[in-house]
Order: sequence, then C-alpha cells, then structure tokens
Amino acid sequence: MSILCVGSVALDSVETPFGKAARVIGGSAVYFTAAASLFTPVRVVGVVGEDYPLERLDFLRERGADLSGIEQRTGESFFWAGRYHFDLNTRDTLETKLGVFADFEPKIPERFRAERFVFLGNIDPSLQHDVLDQVESPEVVACDTMNYWIEGNRDALLELLGRVRILMVNDEEVRQLAGEPNLLKAARWVQKRGPEIVVVKKGEHGAILFADDWFFFVPGFPLEEVFDPTGAGDSFAGGFMGYLASTGSVSPSDLRRAMVYGSVLGSFAVEKFSVDRLIDLPIADIESRLMQFRDITAFEAPVPQANV
Amino acid sequence: MSILCVGSVALDSVETPFGKAARVIGGSAVYFTAAASLFTPVRVVGVVGEDYPLERLDFLRERGADLSGIEQRTGESFFWAGRYHFDLNTRDTLETKLGVFADFEPKIPERFRAERFVFLGNIDPSLQHDVLDQVESPEVVACDTMNYWIEGNRDALLELLGRVRILMVNDEEVRQLAGEPNLLKAARWVQKRGPEIVVVKKGEHGAILFADDWFFFVPGFPLEEVFDPTGAGDSFAGGFMGYLASTGSVSPSDLRRAMVYGSVLGSFAVEKFSVDRLIDLPIADIESRLMQFRDITAFEAPVPQANV
Repeated sequence: MSILCVGSVALDSVETPFGKAARVIGGSAVYFTAAASLFTPVRVVGVVGEDYPLERLDFLRERGADLSGIEQRTGESFFWAGRYHFDLNTRDTLETKLGVFADFEPKIPERFRAERFVFLGNIDPSLQHDVLDQVESPEVVACDTMNYWIEGNRDALLELLGRVRILMVNDEEVRQLAGEPNLLKAARWVQKRGPEIVVVKKGEHGAILFADDWFFFVPGFPLEEVFDPTGAGDSFAGGFMGYLASTGSVSPSDLRRAMVYGSVLGSFAVEKFSVDRLIDLPIADIESRLMQFRDITAFEAPVPQANV
Repeated sequence: MSILCVGSVALDSVETPFGKAARVIGGSAVYFTAAASLFTPVRVVGVVGEDYPLERLDFLRERGADLSGIEQRTGESFFWAGRYHFDLNTRDTLETKLGVFADFEPKIPERFRAERFVFLGNIDPSLQHDVLDQVESPEVVACDTMNYWIEGNRDALLELLGRVRILMVNDEEVRQLAGEPNLLKAARWVQKRGPEIVVVKKGEHGAILFADDWFFFVPGFPLEEVFDPTGAGDSFAGGFMGYLASTGSVSPSDLRRAMVYGSVLGSFAVEKFSVDRLIDLPIADIESRLMQFRDITAFEAPVPQANV
C-alpha cells in the first residue's frame, strides 16, 4: 500500500564538528519520504516558498513519490539553522524562520484522500486533526510531535491521540507528554489515550516499540562516521512506515521488522548531510545492514549451568 | 572456573524519588559478587571498617563466595551518600567518606593467587596493577574505572590497559578516556592499547560489546519499577564475568550470552535498594528474563519486497 505523508518541507543549514552544509533540503516530510519511498509509493502534502529548489526532490519522483501535494507559495520556505555539539547528542538552534510554513493549512488533494496509511509529521496538532478530517478511512495513522506542541497545544494533541494508532516520539517527549520519567509507564499512559503502539526513538541508543503485551527493542547502529544527525528520526519513521505499508500489515512480526528497517534507514541518513545518503541507496545495502542488525543482537540460549 | 574480585566494600545511603535507604551494603565488590556468585564461586578482596555489618554478606558465603580476603581494620568503612533525580539518570553525591578504603593496599591471599578470571573493580589503577602483580597467571582480566582515575592517574591506567583483556566502562568514561566522542572510534582507541574486548555500559540504554571485527548490543530491560540504579553497572559486570567464568570460555557465543546475563542481573539489581533483589533470586527468574531479552530483540528476516 501507499502512504500519505504530511509534514514540513524545509531548507536546513547545519554545522557539525565535521563540516557545514548550507540551505540543503530537509524537513520531516522530505526525510520521511526519502526513506519510505524505498519501500512503497508516498503521497506528500506540504508547502514551500518561491526559493525552494524543487528539482532536488526529483529523486523522490523517480522512485514513485507523488509530490503534487506540495504547494509553492509566495514567500520564503521554512528555514532552520543549527549547530551540533562535540558528541552530536545535543544541538543549538541558531535560527528558525517559518516563512510560508507559518500559514500552512494542509489541503489533501482528492486523489490522496483514500490513503489508508498516514504519517503525520511534526506539525501543529490542530493541523494534524485537519488532515485526518480530510482522509476518508485512515487505518494506520502514525504521528510525531515535539515539546513545543506538548506544551503549547496539549488539548488538541491529547484529542489527536484518540485518532492515532502509532505514536512515534523521542524519549524526552514521551516523558514530558505523560509527566512520567519511567519510559514503560509513560508508554502505558499514552496507550490508555488511544495509540495501540508507542515507538520511542532514543537517537544513538536505538528505539523501543511498546505494544499491548509485548515490546521490541532495536539498537542504534554503531557508526564510525556520524556526519549529521538531522532527520534521523524522520528517516526512522520513513523506514518503519514504508516497510509496514509495503506489507499492508501491522502484525507483530511485521512491526518488529519495521523497527529494524527504521533503525537501518536512520543509520544511513546520518552518514551524510541532508538526505544525500538516501538518494542512491541500493536495496542490497539496506538488506545487508538489516542482517547486520540481526547479528548485533542475536544470541543462542545457554545450556543451563548456574551455580546455585 | 572461579573469579577473583577486588573492589570496594561500602555502605551507601541512597535517596531516590521512591524512597530512602540508610547505610545499606554496597560497593563494587559487593554488587559484583552478588551477581557473579549466582554463576560461579567468587573470591573477594577488599577492606571494611569496624562498623561494617559483615553478617549481611552471609548470603554470599552461602552461595560459595570466599570472603576471607575482606580485611577488617580499625576505622570507618567507605561510605557514600547520593540522591537520584526525577528521571533516575542523574544523581548528586551528597557525601563520600573513604575511611579505611583510603589506605587500601590489596593483599591477595596465597590461596587466591592462581585464579585465572579476575575482576578489577573501580579502584586506583596503581592498586589494580598491584593486584595483577600478585596473581600468578591471570588469563581473563576485566577492569572498570571512572572519570576520577582517567583524569587523576591516567598514566597508570593506560599502562594497565596493556594487562587487561576486557575493559568495562560507561559511555562517558570511554569517550573521556579516548578523547573521542564517537563510541566506535573510542572503543577502537582502547583496543589498540591492549583490551581485545571493550564493553560500554549505557545505563537504561543497555550495553555494547566491541570485539575485533564484530559487536553485540544488549538493551536495558524496560522496567516499570526502577527503585535504585546504584550498583547496576557492577551487577552487570558480575553477571557478565560470572557467566563467562562458569563456562571457562570467551568465545563469541559465550561473550554474547554473557552480555545478556549482564543486562539481566543489572535489571534485577535496580528493582530494590542495595543488593536486596539479588539475595533470593531464583535461577528460574534469571533464565526467564534471559528469554525475555531474546524476545525483545529477535526478528525474522523479511521476504525481499522493496519498491525500487
């Protein structure tokens, strides 16, 4: 099945200890689609300004992504500039200019309204509601959010949880949302409000999926060269949802594999600036890293031989 | 095989968001032995003051630990008091009194000198050298250390690496030791200086083992009730080394299982204050949690079906 993705289409200027990239393509919808389109067609809804280099998204079109829902408006594109610290786990935002994104009102084209897999990137929860209002019968809705909305539009976000099957957030966000430091309890808190599945992303530490009576853990892939962590979470979401939609299933075994594909795509995304590593990524490399993930975590149960 | 363990035998006063425990038994050697003695006999060398409630270590004796290398001296025992923050990932040290531990000069009893598995708990690297000088033919030496020694006795620590087969430290420590934020590169830096194996402990995020041309990842076990993180790292080390010594092997498959036993024991240790959870811990519970770890990370490779 295909996926409807609504999120930001941005320009990023990024500094890391290893280099700089100026005004490169980014945003949640771009990273998500760069990963998900490796598995299944993606229909994208977003907004950009006149300054956006739309031709740089051609590689997505070539993969079967439908970008006709990206509206180009008078004004500037959403711009973010940030600088990562020495250990790449923390960053400072140097500049944020919302531009045309400030007035984004997602309009889902008629031809996208029958989509059953939906990814709501990190935008105002009120807009996430508007998206779902326009989709005929969404079945597998995954959504992301951030501290800004958890504080600033909490009521809409809590109501949204009742319409969402999969919440995908990072560990700080789920703790803040639930007001609960324990990750397992925080996930249970979310599940009581709607989502069956809570996927907690932990950056280099991997990710955990909490289902009703089971959970699944995937590590971050230990990389010698992490160039730029920007977009790792959205690439994870793209690998996760892209794989699920390609199977049309949310069975436990598919959810487990989806977690690993998520971590695989997140691990590739950080190897270069922007979505560069995802542009010409051979399927064989994806499958090979998937098997490496298995090798990293698999063990045989021992012959019982304890001392006591 | 049995293990020689040298480390601190302490009294801890701990405050967590969930309660307080005053002057309970702790220290690296106590946590290590509480975990390792579930797998194999442990010979312990340490020092305590006149105030130490040695009878509280009887459960270790009953399991076959030999505590006759714990010297009782005139003065006070090593005492640590700390308070954990809301999310349990950070803590403040409220008080540290070294007491008789300040003049600790480990003397390895004759009957312990033939041990081949050795765990050097977090003490001055110069003392860790002294221990190895007294052991006849140490084969599998694992050692822990901390920021205090990385800064304060760096030369002795670097020299020690040449005598150690397994370095077990946390992620901050290995980054500080190597002066390198990338975990994989930091581990490679350490390996060039001696240890074949670097085990990086990451608290609730699990642990990674770096070997020559492979690595292995074990998650932290998602727990609804983390009471007290004190000693989790030493309990991990005890489960890891205890299992390895019980097999007498450091093969890749045993190292993988050892990592999981480490995380299993670490996860039990934090469920109660002090070593309380490790006192009457049934082997069946250990094996059952080991299988849960497998369930948390295992996945089947997919049928290839990518879009591109």
